[in-house]
Amino acid sequence: MPTAIKLDEKFKSFTEQWRPKVIADLNGQEVKVVKVQGEFPWHHHDHEDEFFLVWKGIFRVEFRDHIVSLAPGEGIVVPRGIEHRTCADDEAEVLIFEPKDVRNTGNVHDEKFTAPNAAHV
Amino acid sequence: MPTAIKLDEKFKSFTEQWRPKVIADLNGQEVKVVKVQGEFPWHHHDHEDEFFLVWKGIFRVEFRDHIVSLAPGEGIVVPRGIEHRTCADDEAEVLIFEPKDVRNTGNVHDEKFTAPNAAHV
Repeated sequence: MPTAIKLDEKFKSFTEQWRPKVIADLNGQEVKVVKVQGEFPWHHHDHEDEFFLVWKGIFRVEFRDHIVSLAPGEGIVVPRGIEHRTCADDEAEVLIFEPKDVRNTGNVHDEKFTAPNAAHV
Repeated sequence: MPTAIKLDEKFKSFTEQWRPKVIADLNGQEVKVVKVQGEFPWHHHDHEDEFFLVWKGIFRVEFRDHIVSLAPGEGIVVPRGIEHRTCADDEAEVLIFEPKDVRNTGNVHDEKFTAPNAAHV
């Protein structure tokens, strides 16, 4: 039975940073929430576009040739193949829409940042 | 070059209700914004799940056996095949994430409510 998915409750339910949590599955895609602070590794995704939408805080998406700084209610599509990294000086809360089972670090394997898939909250 | 997509600007850029506007395309999916007020026709989608996320106002998703009322920051997945209608007493602003080219009224054609696809803002 379809029920409400409450972003504030979802964000309150975990504290770890950089490890996206799935909150909805549909059409082979996932809606995820993630808390971020600091700098993520440079990477790209060969086959997946990503949509980020900021819920709280200031979130930067850095490309090799420009930086996009996003406030709450602001989003961005990072097209497949484009190298990027995500950053936040203070903790930010971000929503992600992307295909199921994408590796968060894309072409890179990183001991610290590569996260397990399919972790739900 | 990927740039910021600002929800407030997108919502301010149109006034008509019930006709979703695409703000992002990715992975064969679309992120859309829509303003709603009143009652939408009962319908279902044979092949598409839908994710709604409320941005402003109170938005109801009604099923034949229960009603889910959603405030800002609350969302829902409506799985394919399940009859539903969306409603709002006062105007609400809602984000939608669903496959490209889905018909908004699903299995129903409605003179007033069936909207053209691929309208971007």
